[in-house]
Amino acid sequence: MSAYDDLLDHHRETEALAEVMGRLGWDQETVMPRGGAQQRAEEMGALEGVLHRRRTDPRIGAWLASIDEGGLGAAERAQLRHIRRSYSRAMRLPETLSAELARVTSRAQGIWAEARAADDVAHFLPTLTEVIRLKREEAAALAEGGDLYDALLDDYEPGATGQGIAEMFDRMRPRLVSLRERIMGSGRDHPALSGRYGAEAQLTLAREIATHFGYDWRHGRLDSSVHPFTSGSGTDVRITTRVDEAEPLGCLYSTLHEVGHGAYEQGIDPAFHLTPVGHGVSMGVHESQSRIYENQLGRSAAFCGWLYARFGEVFGQAGAADAQAFYAAVNRVHSGYIRTEADEVHYNLHIMLRFDLERDLIAGRLEAADLEEAWNTRFAADFGVAVDRPANGVLQDVHWSVGLFGYFPTYTLGNVYAGCLYQALRAAVPDLDAGLARGHAEPATDWLRAHVQRPGGLYAPAEVIERACGFAPHEGPLLDYLDTKFGAVYGL
Amino acid sequence: MSAYDDLLDHHRETEALAEVMGRLGWDQETVMPRGGAQQRAEEMGALEGVLHRRRTDPRIGAWLASIDEGGLGAAERAQLRHIRRSYSRAMRLPETLSAELARVTSRAQGIWAEARAADDVAHFLPTLTEVIRLKREEAAALAEGGDLYDALLDDYEPGATGQGIAEMFDRMRPRLVSLRERIMGSGRDHPALSGRYGAEAQLTLAREIATHFGYDWRHGRLDSSVHPFTSGSGTDVRITTRVDEAEPLGCLYSTLHEVGHGAYEQGIDPAFHLTPVGHGVSMGVHESQSRIYENQLGRSAAFCGWLYARFGEVFGQAGAADAQAFYAAVNRVHSGYIRTEADEVHYNLHIMLRFDLERDLIAGRLEAADLEEAWNTRFAADFGVAVDRPANGVLQDVHWSVGLFGYFPTYTLGNVYAGCLYQALRAAVPDLDAGLARGHAEPATDWLRAHVQRPGGLYAPAEVIERACGFAPHEGPLLDYLDTKFGAVYGL
Repeated sequence: MSAYDDLLDHHRETEALAEVMGRLGWDQETVMPRGGAQQRAEEMGALEGVLHRRRTDPRIGAWLASIDEGGLGAAERAQLRHIRRSYSRAMRLPETLSAELARVTSRAQGIWAEARAADDVAHFLPTLTEVIRLKREEAAALAEGGDLYDALLDDYEPGATGQGIAEMFDRMRPRLVSLRERIMGSGRDHPALSGRYGAEAQLTLAREIATHFGYDWRHGRLDSSVHPFTSGSGTDVRITTRVDEAEPLGCLYSTLHEVGHGAYEQGIDPAFHLTPVGHGVSMGVHESQSRIYENQLGRSAAFCGWLYARFGEVFGQAGAADAQAFYAAVNRVHSGYIRTEADEVHYNLHIMLRFDLERDLIAGRLEAADLEEAWNTRFAADFGVAVDRPANGVLQDVHWSVGLFGYFPTYTLGNVYAGCLYQALRAAVPDLDAGLARGHAEPATDWLRAHVQRPGGLYAPAEVIERACGFAPHEGPLLDYLDTKFGAVYGL
Repeated sequence: MSAYDDLLDHHRETEALAEVMGRLGWDQETVMPRGGAQQRAEEMGALEGVLHRRRTDPRIGAWLASIDEGGLGAAERAQLRHIRRSYSRAMRLPETLSAELARVTSRAQGIWAEARAADDVAHFLPTLTEVIRLKREEAAALAEGGDLYDALLDDYEPGATGQGIAEMFDRMRPRLVSLRERIMGSGRDHPALSGRYGAEAQLTLAREIATHFGYDWRHGRLDSSVHPFTSGSGTDVRITTRVDEAEPLGCLYSTLHEVGHGAYEQGIDPAFHLTPVGHGVSMGVHESQSRIYENQLGRSAAFCGWLYARFGEVFGQAGAADAQAFYAAVNRVHSGYIRTEADEVHYNLHIMLRFDLERDLIAGRLEAADLEEAWNTRFAADFGVAVDRPANGVLQDVHWSVGLFGYFPTYTLGNVYAGCLYQALRAAVPDLDAGLARGHAEPATDWLRAHVQRPGGLYAPAEVIERACGFAPHEGPLLDYLDTKFGAVYGL
């Protein structure tokens, strides 16, 4: 056995155990009996300890040091790149800090939930302050003198920098604000769907759509959960959705979103399964797959035409006067407080707000005590309305309570990537709309599989997009797509 | 921290990881996508490796050596007894042998399934020979000069011996054969239930019955699987059942059987959760709980009277002319080939046959090549019919293919224990039938919880039964119960 083989064997077992951890998370959110939570936390804690010891095993360093990369191929070198990166990150974090972060954020999530339910920022403030202090400490340990925010961001989007993202967001924001204002001033207000839609029928239609978009049921399943998510890699990639009988689009577009994430993991070259390269390469690229399925394909006029007719067959109603009204309802733009309910126009404004605030928090330019005021001021500027209560403002997202700083911008990066990919996909598959008008997206899935999904972590995130599109990713295609689409929907 | 605390902390984490392993097994049998099997095997293999290293960690020996038992209470000493026992077993097994057993039995199960499907004993013979060779080797390593079969049996029923069980079985067998022959010669043949019963309604009724027998849904759930089973300890104890629309009793009595196993684990003192004492103490005592719920309580005349009426309400039919015919159908005695379909009279005869054969196999008095003939000869003698094909004979059970030698007798031990417990329960709760006639068994569950379930592994198996009953367990109560019950059902 060579050092390379030993190293990969070690990681294969670690990856297998990490899959087990993911399965426990899935179980907890879908099928676990209510009274099992405390014991489950102990089970996950024990497994997390095993994973941490494996990931910081000093043999990894010894193996890495003794490998001669000269004779290795591109895939092997990519494996080493991922291993080096994660080993180096793990070794830079003092174990006491990791343990304290795990302890504090686990408690913080509960306190945040209480604060949100009671609209009580003060209740969350001491805990948030503590989380920010620890994340700054973590960032300092990881950054080794470099930019603090970049050190956190790098965990979710390797190679991206706060500066680069800020410049791109600064270019996007005026165009998005302008589009938003023109829509709001258009005098048109497309109504949402009316009526009630049976839960079982929604799930049946969700399964049908997932099939049409290339989700592989031999290696997956669909369940209900409070918050939709995708879980697992390799040959067992499960998705969930949520069901609201008054609002059937939530179930269906959540499904399409998760089908995007799921198809990505299912589409990775099986040769990479249970290896460091065998996952989606970054949160941004992952989000590009979920967004292009959900938005560019799923909210297209062609697909909505099919969906309108299918609604009539499945539910006996479509909640709209005709196919055009249905399409307008699906793409309804409305000023809302909540990120997860936002339309394609508002969504990225939500992200930019969070990105700027969390970057200031980590840099020490903003303190937790001043966060609510900063949030409310910015929201009024970008959305044209005042936040009515903290649960609709600074307390709405779980992310910061669990220590996810540097994660938010990957949502918009995903949208930007999706804009680029959609432009390239349209060029490569000119008759895309013909399939979508029959409810099918398999040609899109085939193209995405070949050009984005199959390589897994073989290339850097921006490189994946550039190889697929033939140009370096930039915000132009997304903004053009939004202008064109919503210009038509709102007659601008 | 004392050595005792360190030792228990170590085992608490091991127990938590063992729970995770159980959860993976549950997932595999209930919800896993079909295409996930190979990866799941890798996941379970990786976790098994972690568990093996934890269970053979030399620090366990050092901690055990440095603990002074003088100042410890009864519960602490019981913890040490369990830890000493399992550590000593684990250390006696050479790692190469464990690995080979895992590899061979994992392959053997598939070959056994093929052989059973094809009725082809020869296809399974080389593999079975290999499994037996390895199990003899394992037994020799564990026995250290003592009895080989006892060394295997001890894993499932600590303290029991092959000799002791053989003597008890020899006392039971003539009375069971005689009862069987009198029933067969009675000229009565109670028909099975007729009709078809919707799957969803069966599961709804199964859930209702589980509730009435004290199953705790806050810490459990019911799903469907090919073979019913119970999974988990502590605060997450799940059960499964199977559904056949032509045979509703299978779903309901499988549920009651698993409710017995599940109630046992749910009933253990929460102070013992995630410790070595926090499990049912042996397979025999576990089976006593499943059997008393399924048979002595579930197949009683009082409960069947309620069930007959409930069938009419739930299914619009009960498949029998009246409550008495329903009770007779539930307790129908018929010569069948298959252990898992056997009635209360035949079941133990199935076990005794397997016990004698596997004891001879491990002792070297019988070889795999002669097993089929030995099986068929014995079956004809005890059941009065000739085995028609291997799938109905020597190939019917999975146990031997996966290396479970010494497990079978615990089924009958469980029936014997259930007989004892039922006698004591009747004396302690005189109005048991009044509850059962309303479909409820909570007073029985309360008594079993207090006297059998709550202590977990605090006492030795036979001691658990003796403490609950006030007398040492013996076969008399079970045989008397069977004579009385089936004497009435068949007018003997």
